[in-house]
Amino acid sequence: MQPPPSSPWRANASGMKKSLGARTLLYTHPVVVIGTYDERGRPNAMTAAWAGICCSSPPCVAVSLQKPRYTYRNITEQKAFTVNIPSGDHVREADFFGMVSGKDTDKFAASGLTPVKGTMVDAPYVDEFPVVLECKLLHTFDLGLHTQFVGEILDVKVDETAIGPDGKPEMARIRPFVYDSARQEYYGIGRLIGKAFSAGGDLKR
Amino acid sequence: MQPPPSSPWRANASGMKKSLGARTLLYTHPVVVIGTYDERGRPNAMTAAWAGICCSSPPCVAVSLQKPRYTYRNITEQKAFTVNIPSGDHVREADFFGMVSGKDTDKFAASGLTPVKGTMVDAPYVDEFPVVLECKLLHTFDLGLHTQFVGEILDVKVDETAIGPDGKPEMARIRPFVYDSARQEYYGIGRLIGKAFSAGGDLKR
Repeated sequence: MQPPPSSPWRANASGMKKSLGARTLLYTHPVVVIGTYDERGRPNAMTAAWAGICCSSPPCVAVSLQKPRYTYRNITEQKAFTVNIPSGDHVREADFFGMVSGKDTDKFAASGLTPVKGTMVDAPYVDEFPVVLECKLLHTFDLGLHTQFVGEILDVKVDETAIGPDGKPEMARIRPFVYDSARQEYYGIGRLIGKAFSAGGDLKR
Repeated sequence: MQPPPSSPWRANASGMKKSLGARTLLYTHPVVVIGTYDERGRPNAMTAAWAGICCSSPPCVAVSLQKPRYTYRNITEQKAFTVNIPSGDHVREADFFGMVSGKDTDKFAASGLTPVKGTMVDAPYVDEFPVVLECKLLHTFDLGLHTQFVGEILDVKVDETAIGPDGKPEMARIRPFVYDSARQEYYGIGRLIGKAFSAGGDLKR
């Protein structure tokens, strides 16, 4: 996760909109937990919000980390990681995973959650979390304070109880949450408000 | 936006989790609208979900597009784009922006929404949307089917009505929505479920 911005929240009027300056605001950020092994094979989990899908073929996800992070070293060395999606049941554990470093703390032991070795890559996933992406490191882009790791998604694993009768995961059973970086808050997901490739159909001429 | 996956939703049991194969699933994807000008100065808007913050300093956002997209050409030529966050009031327009190409359609005219030239970059934003990031192209990474454009965020503009008394934007006033790529559905944001850097504090020893 990211520390609170240090500059003050000062707004300059610009028509009906206010200019808030150069900030990493986006609505919304996902909350993902990155699973890795260190060089001694100890599992670690770290929470991040600078993440997103970045390619459909090969299927890839991008996660950005600062260089001092323990997970940074683990990904660089092992060339593998998992991206785990916590449900609203595990806000506490996910937040904890973003507060302390795996250098000093066995976060799985401290949280009581269970590391399971991935079947496709040499990285652990969080057994209690409903969705897991197993990723092989494809690209490393040094962008500045953060380095972006692009992982090829080799497999997605989803809790059986979060999969609907049609074989697809259901949002209401996964119950993911999102991060508000302006206020350092977590929000759940609300109701269905529209079907994609459909809701705007009447605007097509 | 992304077309529905072509492979069937077939699951292989793996303990309590089912393996769904190599898919671009993530919970959740943001819904962003990318604003650009073409070589004749005509504004265009395109909806995307493969996006996320990727660096804090310089502040950067990544958006991934396929090469045939009109917006791809516009970003490559103009080196500038905006990232606009629609509210739940504009699901219909945001969906429409992902259904047709700016090659054939003046999407602003068709939707009735208003393009406004950015103050920091040569790209238009959507006046009716509550949050706008003005971005200068910094990096272009060809990842496969998608190319990732990393833009430096030069300014964030937020509707005055979406900013709270403390100067920070409020989730409940922005009312963003997210994309479920498994079901091609849009979901609103729910209730506050925790404070970051706080909810997990009791797990620290």
